[in-house]
Amino acid sequence: MRAAGLEHGGRLGAARRRFPGAPEPFLDLSTGINPVPWPLPPLPPDSVTRLPEPDQEAALLRAAASAYGVADPAMVAAAPGTQILIQLIPRLFPQQALAVLGPTYAEHAACWRAAGTAVREVAHPDELFGAPAALLCNPNNPDGRRHDPAALRRLADRMAERGGLLVVDEAFADLEPEPLSAAGYLPHPALLILRSFGKSYGLAGLRLGFALAAPDRAAAIRAALGPWAVSGPAIAAGRAALSDAAWRAAAAARLARDAARLDAALGAAGLAVRGGTLLFRLAEGAAAAWHDSLGRAGILTRPFAAQPRWLRFGLPGDAAGWKRLEVALRI
Amino acid sequence: MRAAGLEHGGRLGAARRRFPGAPEPFLDLSTGINPVPWPLPPLPPDSVTRLPEPDQEAALLRAAASAYGVADPAMVAAAPGTQILIQLIPRLFPQQALAVLGPTYAEHAACWRAAGTAVREVAHPDELFGAPAALLCNPNNPDGRRHDPAALRRLADRMAERGGLLVVDEAFADLEPEPLSAAGYLPHPALLILRSFGKSYGLAGLRLGFALAAPDRAAAIRAALGPWAVSGPAIAAGRAALSDAAWRAAAAARLARDAARLDAALGAAGLAVRGGTLLFRLAEGAAAAWHDSLGRAGILTRPFAAQPRWLRFGLPGDAAGWKRLEVALRI
Repeated sequence: MRAAGLEHGGRLGAARRRFPGAPEPFLDLSTGINPVPWPLPPLPPDSVTRLPEPDQEAALLRAAASAYGVADPAMVAAAPGTQILIQLIPRLFPQQALAVLGPTYAEHAACWRAAGTAVREVAHPDELFGAPAALLCNPNNPDGRRHDPAALRRLADRMAERGGLLVVDEAFADLEPEPLSAAGYLPHPALLILRSFGKSYGLAGLRLGFALAAPDRAAAIRAALGPWAVSGPAIAAGRAALSDAAWRAAAAARLARDAARLDAALGAAGLAVRGGTLLFRLAEGAAAAWHDSLGRAGILTRPFAAQPRWLRFGLPGDAAGWKRLEVALRI
Repeated sequence: MRAAGLEHGGRLGAARRRFPGAPEPFLDLSTGINPVPWPLPPLPPDSVTRLPEPDQEAALLRAAASAYGVADPAMVAAAPGTQILIQLIPRLFPQQALAVLGPTYAEHAACWRAAGTAVREVAHPDELFGAPAALLCNPNNPDGRRHDPAALRRLADRMAERGGLLVVDEAFADLEPEPLSAAGYLPHPALLILRSFGKSYGLAGLRLGFALAAPDRAAAIRAALGPWAVSGPAIAAGRAALSDAAWRAAAAARLARDAARLDAALGAAGLAVRGGTLLFRLAEGAAAAWHDSLGRAGILTRPFAAQPRWLRFGLPGDAAGWKRLEVALRI
């Protein structure tokens, strides 16, 4: 159902078929999902049996606005995961042409192309200024490239002059040590920001993501999704977790230590760390050989068809995982 | 965010504001959701922490195909609730004009109109045959009107001759004593069927619904939703519950007894039962007065702005609920 080039991480079924003799359970480092999830309490029974109440979704939007630094919940739309927003936005806010700062998460360009937009991938942020509409990820996946929010505002202003759009995917911004979100510039006529819940909070299966935009755009997204797009469990978990700044600070501190530990292990294995975020590291070197030998050891990493020397590593979540990875990297 | 005329059931927050002195907890009979849910086991932790696997979603589609009598899972698309399909389909399969058999669930006409389609409501099924595209609910909400699947096939054939579309919303078909689904006629070039999971299984908060259609249409819906549109908990629950024919049979038997009991109580209160399904009954009479007096007693029912003598009742789920309702109806 997807184009052949769009490989995703996190596909254990496919990994088992590819590495049939590997020891179980697989250690899945192929995603950028926090391996130590926010501690989900038992779900209120009503959250699964009843339709979500408008009041509950409104409380979720308030919690998201506060966590993401948006002045007004009217500038927030909640969705069952960011992916469905990536699918929807090109059809909701059609653009003739769009420049994407790449290489980056491939679903963006694929969905804009599917909507009939002429997509051009550019390598340098300056090249975005000439386009009528632009998209970038901040920080970027997979290389962790960061962009100064003030520069993004200038870019958004340029897009606004042309009635265009700047989409900034901040899927990996939650745990960043330096604030890099452009959300403080909202409302802005051209700026549309995406935030993911599942990655930072380690609850990707719940499916929750957000669009942040000027009230008219946010309202259009809410109207396109319709009522009850977000499940009761996602609303309950999102409200509580987004309000838990203490957990976020502790998670960021732990992940910073773990990212440094991973960089050291990768370096000792002869892999150069090109960058990353607190949820994944991008290594460069004999990627295919490492993907294969780690796979046979039951450790799943994320290769890139278009970048054969790149290999992305998520972070292990416990001592057993660290031991398996560090032993396997010494082979 | 929604047009003022689109009232929905299941809004306890609004009910509490309207009936501030009512005894708590509210007995919510304003929806058509099974009050005795399928017994959801504890969710596998992976279902919330990891992205759903393609293999898991494929198993869900197989379970749905089997439960709904569809020959091939390639004719099934899963979504986070039927509502998002109702939003999506008018944009995915645009039609210049559509006839809706009404009165029925108002979201259908609203979403087609929002997509620019000229929508005409007709009162008799024969009037659908002249339209280029048509939509009906089988059984219908709120009056429970049923349609012979063979007649729907003739209607679908007529639509196909014109390259049109017949949407049949079978949201309330799961527990019907007589088979009335048109799913056996798939693949068909014009036929698109909607099925809801949450109502029959009492798990509306999980958000799970299906479209059944010829493989090309089903693939287009899957592509528009993108990967991971359905949450891990919904996939896990859906796979198991859709495979539980014994539970469905027991639920249908219980609900048939309960529906008869409700009809008797409504009749004794001077309300005429116009019809319904095993998940709701439509009463006719002094609807506004009953909605108000039941609301003050903490019992929420579903009025209809365009049909001031109609009042829809869901079924109580336990002895305490039955007692409250039967006492309140004797006032």
